[in-house]
Amino acid sequence: MSYDPSTFDGLTFYDARDAFRDGADTPRAYLERCLEAVAAREPLVQAFAHLNEAASCAAADESTRRWQAGRPLSPIDGMPIGVKDLLETLDMPTEMNCAGLQGNFPKKDNAAVRALREAGAVIFGKTVTAELGGSHPGPTTNPFNPARTPGGSSSGSAAAVAAGMMPAAIGTQVGGSIIRPAGYCGNIALKPTQGAINRGERQATSMSTHGVHANAFDDMWQVAYEIAARVGGDPGKSTLNGPSEAPAASKPDTLIVLETAGWAALDSRTVDAFELLLERLAAADVRLLRRDASQEASRLEDAISEAVRICVQITGWENRWGNRNLADIGPGAISNRALAVLDAAERMTLADYQAALADRAAAQAAHAELGVVADAAISLSCPGPAPFWSGDVEGAQLVRRPTGDAIFNYPSSMLFAPVVTTPMLSVAGMPVGVQLIGMQHQDARMAALSRWMHENISPVAG
Amino acid sequence: MSYDPSTFDGLTFYDARDAFRDGADTPRAYLERCLEAVAAREPLVQAFAHLNEAASCAAADESTRRWQAGRPLSPIDGMPIGVKDLLETLDMPTEMNCAGLQGNFPKKDNAAVRALREAGAVIFGKTVTAELGGSHPGPTTNPFNPARTPGGSSSGSAAAVAAGMMPAAIGTQVGGSIIRPAGYCGNIALKPTQGAINRGERQATSMSTHGVHANAFDDMWQVAYEIAARVGGDPGKSTLNGPSEAPAASKPDTLIVLETAGWAALDSRTVDAFELLLERLAAADVRLLRRDASQEASRLEDAISEAVRICVQITGWENRWGNRNLADIGPGAISNRALAVLDAAERMTLADYQAALADRAAAQAAHAELGVVADAAISLSCPGPAPFWSGDVEGAQLVRRPTGDAIFNYPSSMLFAPVVTTPMLSVAGMPVGVQLIGMQHQDARMAALSRWMHENISPVAG
Repeated sequence: MSYDPSTFDGLTFYDARDAFRDGADTPRAYLERCLEAVAAREPLVQAFAHLNEAASCAAADESTRRWQAGRPLSPIDGMPIGVKDLLETLDMPTEMNCAGLQGNFPKKDNAAVRALREAGAVIFGKTVTAELGGSHPGPTTNPFNPARTPGGSSSGSAAAVAAGMMPAAIGTQVGGSIIRPAGYCGNIALKPTQGAINRGERQATSMSTHGVHANAFDDMWQVAYEIAARVGGDPGKSTLNGPSEAPAASKPDTLIVLETAGWAALDSRTVDAFELLLERLAAADVRLLRRDASQEASRLEDAISEAVRICVQITGWENRWGNRNLADIGPGAISNRALAVLDAAERMTLADYQAALADRAAAQAAHAELGVVADAAISLSCPGPAPFWSGDVEGAQLVRRPTGDAIFNYPSSMLFAPVVTTPMLSVAGMPVGVQLIGMQHQDARMAALSRWMHENISPVAG
Repeated sequence: MSYDPSTFDGLTFYDARDAFRDGADTPRAYLERCLEAVAAREPLVQAFAHLNEAASCAAADESTRRWQAGRPLSPIDGMPIGVKDLLETLDMPTEMNCAGLQGNFPKKDNAAVRALREAGAVIFGKTVTAELGGSHPGPTTNPFNPARTPGGSSSGSAAAVAAGMMPAAIGTQVGGSIIRPAGYCGNIALKPTQGAINRGERQATSMSTHGVHANAFDDMWQVAYEIAARVGGDPGKSTLNGPSEAPAASKPDTLIVLETAGWAALDSRTVDAFELLLERLAAADVRLLRRDASQEASRLEDAISEAVRICVQITGWENRWGNRNLADIGPGAISNRALAVLDAAERMTLADYQAALADRAAAQAAHAELGVVADAAISLSCPGPAPFWSGDVEGAQLVRRPTGDAIFNYPSSMLFAPVVTTPMLSVAGMPVGVQLIGMQHQDARMAALSRWMHENISPVAG
């Protein structure tokens, strides 16, 4: 099932509400259609760590009654939503695709999950994550080609939305764990400003976010909004800024084109497709600033040139206490990939960590200074189409990045910047996302600009 | 056993090291003396939620071998330390004095606990906390009068150190949960700058800290330093600033005297004792700024005048998701005191919370501006001696603050300011602490100034 961005018709929810209201459709019937898609697609896609069918049906029935009574709890009342299996859930285990956490069942809801329930959403299941949100993959395959990875670590969320099993799912990102899999799977997705959506118990790192995978800007924004409106941002942080419904499309005047680390290694078809998209933007009167001709673009690229090292060091250090607890359970409790990351982190000193924090702060300051010259930065969401992946080979050296490379995502993570990815390209019959990166707290603006691109620029089938 | 600050001789560790080195004493023998104190005092004091005797003996034996080989892991190698039962520990349950968490045993170490183990410390046991770090008390009694509270929520840590059962213990503070019980129990204690000691999994509120209860500045500082040197501050935050050994005494030139909310309700003996202490400071050539004669002092008091409301709102909101998870377990899972706090928090809106955050930021800005006019602010650590408390009475209205009032502690918590409390007063045969409050990151400076006061000003037995 080759992907074409012009014809792909993803499952959406916002456009079902009128039928819920007038009785032509119900949330329970909507859920049944999702369950049919699960029956058809899940055996190959394997997006679910846990499917909560009985509880979902009960929740959908309650939602049906609310819509029929004209009293939905929110615009996402009845929406089946998958939750990445890093977040705690009251009624499902939270195993993080980690051997050392098998059977972990804290019987609590993450703050964002509670918010979703309060908004009437149907917590459909837990979606597969790469182990602990890292690079060791789960079983999920790419819905457009099972020989390829869906990306990670929000593998199941990205794949389930792409496969039409649900209209939206919660992902999380530290390095590139929302935007990269969303790019590989053709999702529309939001990685919010750092701290803008309350992470509940998941506060252990200074640069992870909860975000949303969807097939429509309306659904993506509404889910993020309904969470933030109920549980706010992280403790002590401001919350997601923006309207109570998805922002309308807004044309960018100027975009900085980021051709940063990772660019040189791209395949030529991906480069050609992206360049053609840029031509279409320019033809639509969007001014593009590129490093060869723009001081601002080259200054931004300088500011983010160390993003990979900075992100890897900071996240490694911040995760080492928790991951050491797991590793100490015994052999096999965490994967060899995770052990290698832990080993590198445990060779760091506190001074190394503090230096990385200082470097991050300096990059953010440089980014903030550049805010006025462009509406956003534009770049690929992932380095080309999803790589092929068929599992580890016994005895062979471990592939370093089986879920793909986050090299196009580390900069925005480091900058705490909001990102929206939009499926604007296809290469080799696979989706390749295009991201717009904004200044901190411009989440709604990125949604509006991306929406304009999506509605006004023809996607490129490369 | 009435308390006199001039004669009280608390258990210390720093002065045992020479004997460990030359073989006259050993960490195992030190631990045995602690166990004897536990046998003598614990039946009445009830400071332990869990005592890990076998593991402590094994750890003390290993420490003994290291000292005898001349290779201690740190200056606190072999120190028996209690850990407040809010922090996760690998080898003991973490029940937070909460019915809904009975049997909770995550088998993980909080980052600070891991740091202590890496420094060679003996994790002696879990100390009693007021339920979930709030106001519903545990069984612990005040070591100087069992009819009185030890304060809370770090009840067991404060009492165990005062009763000579251990030389140091880890406490935590959101409102007044370290400095108040330390003041009631005659501890020397540090509530660090917000974020300066890594809280590990306990990141859910924007204004809680890990801190240290001890009987000596050397022990207090060394424990804080050894943790921070290994696991740093909270994710993304700077870590505890200061030297690798306790700072030497340093005389303050100028102190702002805080006579803030709570002052009017003090008993006259406490006021008289504190005023006598101030006279002694003035006689030692310390300049005192008071609100009736100092614009700076009155500006600081204005800045913190809303501290109680701000702290209660922020903390209530930030704890509501976790506490709702517990409350939903069923009747009795959390106390009626905690339910009342949760109920108030659930009546807040996100806008209320954001307004409280803005008020806190404004207070911090006002405090930062005042930094230059004084070395520190001085105030009581607690509103007089520990209140009497003999448990809830069936059917009677709940006493609101059975562990005492945090009214003298909310300001520094709100300001993220470092605080050191020193036992400078006794009233009615009970300790009353005196605190010095600094600017953010002046932790070492507060230890040095407090040490000067402790070593140079005669305590007042009022």
